[in-house]
Amino acid sequence: MTKPYSSRSDGLFGPMFGTPAVAERTSAAAWLQAMLDFESALATAQAEAGVIPLPAAEEIARHCRVELFDVDSVAERAVSSATPVIALVRDLTALLDDDAKPHVHRGATSQDVIDTAAMLVARDVLELILDDLRAAADECARLAEQHRDTVMIARSLLQQALPTTFGCRCATWLVSLDEAVTALERVRGRLAVQFGGAAGTLSALDTGGVRVLALLATELGLAEPVVPWHTDRTRIAELAGALGTAAGALGKIAQDVELHAQTEVGELADGQAGGSSAMPHKQNPVSAVLVTAATRRVPGLVATLLSAMPQEYERAAGAWQSEWEPLTELLRLVAAASAQTRRLLTGLRVHPEKMAANLDLTRGLVMAESAAGRLMESLGRTGAQELVAGLCRRAVREGTSLRAELLADQRVRAVLSEDEVVAATEPAGYLGSAPAFIDRALTAHAELEKR
Amino acid sequence: MTKPYSSRSDGLFGPMFGTPAVAERTSAAAWLQAMLDFESALATAQAEAGVIPLPAAEEIARHCRVELFDVDSVAERAVSSATPVIALVRDLTALLDDDAKPHVHRGATSQDVIDTAAMLVARDVLELILDDLRAAADECARLAEQHRDTVMIARSLLQQALPTTFGCRCATWLVSLDEAVTALERVRGRLAVQFGGAAGTLSALDTGGVRVLALLATELGLAEPVVPWHTDRTRIAELAGALGTAAGALGKIAQDVELHAQTEVGELADGQAGGSSAMPHKQNPVSAVLVTAATRRVPGLVATLLSAMPQEYERAAGAWQSEWEPLTELLRLVAAASAQTRRLLTGLRVHPEKMAANLDLTRGLVMAESAAGRLMESLGRTGAQELVAGLCRRAVREGTSLRAELLADQRVRAVLSEDEVVAATEPAGYLGSAPAFIDRALTAHAELEKR
Amino acid sequence: MTKPYSSRSDGLFGPMFGTPAVAERTSAAAWLQAMLDFESALATAQAEAGVIPLPAAEEIARHCRVELFDVDSVAERAVSSATPVIALVRDLTALLDDDAKPHVHRGATSQDVIDTAAMLVARDVLELILDDLRAAADECARLAEQHRDTVMIARSLLQQALPTTFGCRCATWLVSLDEAVTALERVRGRLAVQFGGAAGTLSALDTGGVRVLALLATELGLAEPVVPWHTDRTRIAELAGALGTAAGALGKIAQDVELHAQTEVGELADGQAGGSSAMPHKQNPVSAVLVTAATRRVPGLVATLLSAMPQEYERAAGAWQSEWEPLTELLRLVAAASAQTRRLLTGLRVHPEKMAANLDLTRGLVMAESAAGRLMESLGRTGAQELVAGLCRRAVREGTSLRAELLADQRVRAVLSEDEVVAATEPAGYLGSAPAFIDRALTAHAELEKR
Amino acid sequence: MTKPYSSRSDGLFGPMFGTPAVAERTSAAAWLQAMLDFESALATAQAEAGVIPLPAAEEIARHCRVELFDVDSVAERAVSSATPVIALVRDLTALLDDDAKPHVHRGATSQDVIDTAAMLVARDVLELILDDLRAAADECARLAEQHRDTVMIARSLLQQALPTTFGCRCATWLVSLDEAVTALERVRGRLAVQFGGAAGTLSALDTGGVRVLALLATELGLAEPVVPWHTDRTRIAELAGALGTAAGALGKIAQDVELHAQTEVGELADGQAGGSSAMPHKQNPVSAVLVTAATRRVPGLVATLLSAMPQEYERAAGAWQSEWEPLTELLRLVAAASAQTRRLLTGLRVHPEKMAANLDLTRGLVMAESAAGRLMESLGRTGAQELVAGLCRRAVREGTSLRAELLADQRVRAVLSEDEVVAATEPAGYLGSAPAFIDRALTAHAELEKR
Repeated sequence: MTKPYSSRSDGLFGPMFGTPAVAERTSAAAWLQAMLDFESALATAQAEAGVIPLPAAEEIARHCRVELFDVDSVAERAVSSATPVIALVRDLTALLDDDAKPHVHRGATSQDVIDTAAMLVARDVLELILDDLRAAADECARLAEQHRDTVMIARSLLQQALPTTFGCRCATWLVSLDEAVTALERVRGRLAVQFGGAAGTLSALDTGGVRVLALLATELGLAEPVVPWHTDRTRIAELAGALGTAAGALGKIAQDVELHAQTEVGELADGQAGGSSAMPHKQNPVSAVLVTAATRRVPGLVATLLSAMPQEYERAAGAWQSEWEPLTELLRLVAAASAQTRRLLTGLRVHPEKMAANLDLTRGLVMAESAAGRLMESLGRTGAQELVAGLCRRAVREGTSLRAELLADQRVRAVLSEDEVVAATEPAGYLGSAPAFIDRALTAHAELEKR
Repeated sequence: MTKPYSSRSDGLFGPMFGTPAVAERTSAAAWLQAMLDFESALATAQAEAGVIPLPAAEEIARHCRVELFDVDSVAERAVSSATPVIALVRDLTALLDDDAKPHVHRGATSQDVIDTAAMLVARDVLELILDDLRAAADECARLAEQHRDTVMIARSLLQQALPTTFGCRCATWLVSLDEAVTALERVRGRLAVQFGGAAGTLSALDTGGVRVLALLATELGLAEPVVPWHTDRTRIAELAGALGTAAGALGKIAQDVELHAQTEVGELADGQAGGSSAMPHKQNPVSAVLVTAATRRVPGLVATLLSAMPQEYERAAGAWQSEWEPLTELLRLVAAASAQTRRLLTGLRVHPEKMAANLDLTRGLVMAESAAGRLMESLGRTGAQELVAGLCRRAVREGTSLRAELLADQRVRAVLSEDEVVAATEPAGYLGSAPAFIDRALTAHAELEKR
Repeated sequence: MTKPYSSRSDGLFGPMFGTPAVAERTSAAAWLQAMLDFESALATAQAEAGVIPLPAAEEIARHCRVELFDVDSVAERAVSSATPVIALVRDLTALLDDDAKPHVHRGATSQDVIDTAAMLVARDVLELILDDLRAAADECARLAEQHRDTVMIARSLLQQALPTTFGCRCATWLVSLDEAVTALERVRGRLAVQFGGAAGTLSALDTGGVRVLALLATELGLAEPVVPWHTDRTRIAELAGALGTAAGALGKIAQDVELHAQTEVGELADGQAGGSSAMPHKQNPVSAVLVTAATRRVPGLVATLLSAMPQEYERAAGAWQSEWEPLTELLRLVAAASAQTRRLLTGLRVHPEKMAANLDLTRGLVMAESAAGRLMESLGRTGAQELVAGLCRRAVREGTSLRAELLADQRVRAVLSEDEVVAATEPAGYLGSAPAFIDRALTAHAELEKR
Repeated sequence: MTKPYSSRSDGLFGPMFGTPAVAERTSAAAWLQAMLDFESALATAQAEAGVIPLPAAEEIARHCRVELFDVDSVAERAVSSATPVIALVRDLTALLDDDAKPHVHRGATSQDVIDTAAMLVARDVLELILDDLRAAADECARLAEQHRDTVMIARSLLQQALPTTFGCRCATWLVSLDEAVTALERVRGRLAVQFGGAAGTLSALDTGGVRVLALLATELGLAEPVVPWHTDRTRIAELAGALGTAAGALGKIAQDVELHAQTEVGELADGQAGGSSAMPHKQNPVSAVLVTAATRRVPGLVATLLSAMPQEYERAAGAWQSEWEPLTELLRLVAAASAQTRRLLTGLRVHPEKMAANLDLTRGLVMAESAAGRLMESLGRTGAQELVAGLCRRAVREGTSLRAELLADQRVRAVLSEDEVVAATEPAGYLGSAPAFIDRALTAHAELEKR
């Protein structure tokens, strides 16, 4: 058996559930760098506030680079104190000249470092996620535009229902992605620095803590919280909620692609699909499967983070510590799903001819509502519905089509001309507000991009 | 054994996890009324749009009152079609004069009715929740103000750490409740009408559907969505996320009260606490326990709703239907927890004298950081810390106090006067930015109220 | 608006997610009766142990009938103490003659009553669940037998893969249901009486508590625990786990039926399926949808119960109380899903002709592995696979079938006769161990029934 | 920023939530070796069954060693097919001599390899978990024995209730750990080989598949399933359930230690506890905090695995793939928590003197039930309770003790002697069946060990 930790950082399945970019931004090194960014910014802010000497701050800032640290050693030494901060501060201090040593980590507590680092890691990953979601939304907009008139059957409870267009479906996807972007941008703006010291009072800085807090927030480009949020986990919960919602939107798109890509449906194909020599007909929707697999794991992680919200007194004994890996995981999975969805939509192969063929599968029965609608004025609602229902049953029994039955029926022909019957049974003629909805979604998308 | 359904609507444990007000607003009757509100508003909107005759709309609206319906019968007939809407529309139609009958539920699908009803039910319950959260926040503000100077030990990992004030803790609670209010107000504004018809195209209304949609939204006072959201469950997820976050904030407060109310801590008491004859010393924190019990169930429900987001094609086969009861439950639990927390905070008994006594439990060791801070200038950081650490060990060994040891130590007295030692070991003198944080929280709260 | 609690006990959606039988067995009245069963059995056991007088026990037992109690009042009075037991014991005591009054609830604590009642309620519901699961398994066995030779395409990642039989699928369903039955029977045997008194020491009974515990267990027909399990929630977790696993098995069957029932697949139909006048072609898989909806909610409830396991000291402040409704809900949902699945399988309509037609959808490409297998001996593995892959591409391009291409290819015909080619491309000839697996499943089922 | 994947395999927080041993057994290399173990055993079994030549099997087996593979490369190439098996089989084949090449992976499908590997990985980790749980249980048994007479206050809802012994608490912990061991041993016996081929029919092996299946199970030391379980995830769910239950038991112990270790309670100390120079009085319960943090994450993972149970047709499009990382994570967390709990219990410091002091905190009010019990025979139940309640109130008001009030009260002294009053207010005299429960737990533990 090989040595522990000898192989890639994210396990055998890691690359399927995390892109290289997100693996980098959530790695042990990235976390450690984010913690060092806190220490560096803290020293800088405190120098500006006159709390520590400027040369000390400069010396500290100069050494806050992860390359100077033994990441594995810090991680291993974290076990004995349930935090990597003590080892990190010790190692950082050891690197400094004697004048600077006493000024490291001044007035801060372990949780200040880790919570702020979490915000920085989250911000970096959100950047990836937002990029991919915006690009995926653009692809949806393109598809909605392009397939504005591609008629397709709408399905409810997995049964064929009435006609719609593939463009209209893409409009729905588009709106959900745009809303995910909006929500994630909002939580990004809520990412705040953590700085309260051991009791949340910044007591080691006398009454000067509030000023340092403001400078620190500016330095890091994070929001300044009203009060330290050591045991108010609202920010984490909001972040989790927005990521969870985004995952749901992505999972919906992937599932739709999988369903449309079924051998028996054949309306869409994942551009990533690969055959196998043994089963040459198979077109596995690989990207969609990976998105589905990643996003299915998200609700459990969100629940874990919400469950961790009630944290004891001024610092939790376990609930806080339970957030670290799930939050990292959540960011990783949503980033992976966003990237894969972008790829999926970019390479999506659409088969309008199969959509058309499937529309015909019920021999026009999906047009019964349309046909009845045309007959209502003359025959009344109930009368029209009963007549059409009877013709549908007959079409099924005889193996004909609804159109044929309508054309052959005297009661119908007394009211509708041949052209009118044809029109009434033409899916493209029964699309209601589908084009309007596409326009609305495209307009909203364009406005979002302008912001 | 008694007959099924013979007893109260919410089971034996219901009243503990739902107030009468929320039980009413989430009852079968309330849901049915909300569905009828949709049908009534739809008819009104369609009359205004010229889709159906005004007298028909008036006739429909007149009959959309739950008292005219057999709620139990509708519920039971729902089983055979997996929706209560078919039975409801049938019963409503049966009540109408013949001219109005054909105009009921025009162009709508079952999901339009239930989703819109869910939004209306949610809005009604959010009103209760927001009232209670705002009142609870006001209580936190009162306590923060009132206990601005009530010194208390801050605890981390359930260990005594450094001094803070009870007012500062209340400020943290306050901020979390204010943020919950803000988030819930935002999702309330997102509650949108659902109207798309069977395929999400409003095909039965030709191209007039979009206009009806707008009128319907206005009529019901709900937002108008960009496109129908039958299988884009973002709104449900956002609602769930905000409720989940609020529950976490409430759970935190309740857990804090339970911990402070421990026999060995004794700093707070639940005003609801009742003794028992067998155990007269017990002061069970009843309200806090009920809040804890209610809020612990929330993350699982949020996860269920997030899991239900990927819904197939234009209408889901199971995922959508899985939302109904969990959403109702979530609203009920958060409403119950909000009401109980308001009650808990209103009646909270604070024992400053016990807080003071607990501060003294370690014989001043919690002031070690403060003492070392005062010695740093003269003795250097490490020197000061080592000196104080030694005196702490001595105080523990000898059963004296840190203050006594400091006063008796020559190295200390060479640097600090008696008054300075006393000041350095006085908890009230080591509160840092606690007062400032209280002010910030109160200011933010006042601004929120002004909005 | 109607009065609170005025309508049916389980809400508008209740009947869809709970049968009348399970609604009855989980109602407020059923819970209260189970609590009274504890009090009655306790008195009886204590009389037998000589702890209380026999006439008092008889008087108590005589009054432990839910009809004598105001269920709603007990439920409402529970709020002020976070338990319905205090009100119940008070009401029970009030019903008794004076001699019996002091002997009610002797040595017991609130949690003894509720935990034991939970076990009794669970037992009653498990009886329903096990009945329905066994009947559903019998239906699977019938279908497996009946469709032993009904060839069907197996699908992987929603893509057609290789042939199997519908009987083989039913065998998989069968095994999962049989294993669910086995697991639930095991947890049923673990349901244990709770009796420990306020401190879990039965101190009010001096050293006689252990004897009463044994008698009480016998009286109620529950297991006798090694020690009181007030804060060891293993039994609840095991019950939840087994219910969760059963739900997963049921959800799998329902999802399969939904997929097979798709308009484009059409291999199965839910016997419950109902059309609509507007969409006469739709065959909504109603039972399957309800099973899916019910079972999707189960994992969140299991997680809630697992999260509640760490309970403080000798009695929890919130976690225990959070179990009551989710456990009831879990039992209700799994019972509903079991009953619906039984119904679904009993009425399931199988369309072998559609299965045959779908097998042909790829023009024999699903037989590529089979064909290559026949050529391997002569052409080597790689050679055979490459040859067949080429013919598959050609069949797709030319719109012919794999069989036709094989028959026309000289390299193939040099090795295989016409009959051999036909055999190699005949799905029914490439079923491997499918019949053996069916036999194994049926044998295992028969053995389970014998137990 | 550093390169992706450059640092330790389990991230910055990994060592806190996974021992080196479990990190090794769940690493990418361990997973790959388990997959190779499947391929090796399959070849061996097929040689024995005469399906492939023995030399080929030997050649294959010889090369199924992870050291011969580029783990990272396999992991990266998995992305394009959503499975690492294709790359692995390709790399393995490339290592073999030409005669053996065609015999690799014969008749198997990707899921056969991964599912079987999951079972092997689970078995290896369960070995660690069971070792640690058994050792932890032994520590509980030791503590129960050792503290059989260490009187301690029992607490309910975090309020002091009645006396018990610390040994009695340890007996409760012991029973829960023993039950976790029993359940995990059962699921270990259920771990089964997966072997069904692409359609679950083993069609590539003609009718010989069933025999290979049996040989393969024997070869790997895994159970032989009745039928392939590709889309029957009962085994995964049962494993998850048992791990989830074990985690709950561990979480309970850790939480109890944290509570007993509170500064204000001080009855237990985590042997791992470390102070800080700034806060010398703090004794952070480090091990307990890590156990709490690890186990809080378990319910969400169990829910994810249960949610994944409904898998489509013969192979799932996403749900199956969503199991891989959560199952690995679940094993890792429970292993870490088991190891930490063992360590926690082994080093646990018990402070009987603090337990005695806390018993006295209410000045004897916790003995009210005991005192009333002694007076009941003479004064009746109600009379006795009311008298004692009055004296309790008086003791609180006057700052005396219940014992003093009882001794001073004429009504009491008319009935009880001084010695009897002292006995009635002596916690050690009111322990009921505590010793008996300890004996029962120890006996059950001894029997479990004998098995």
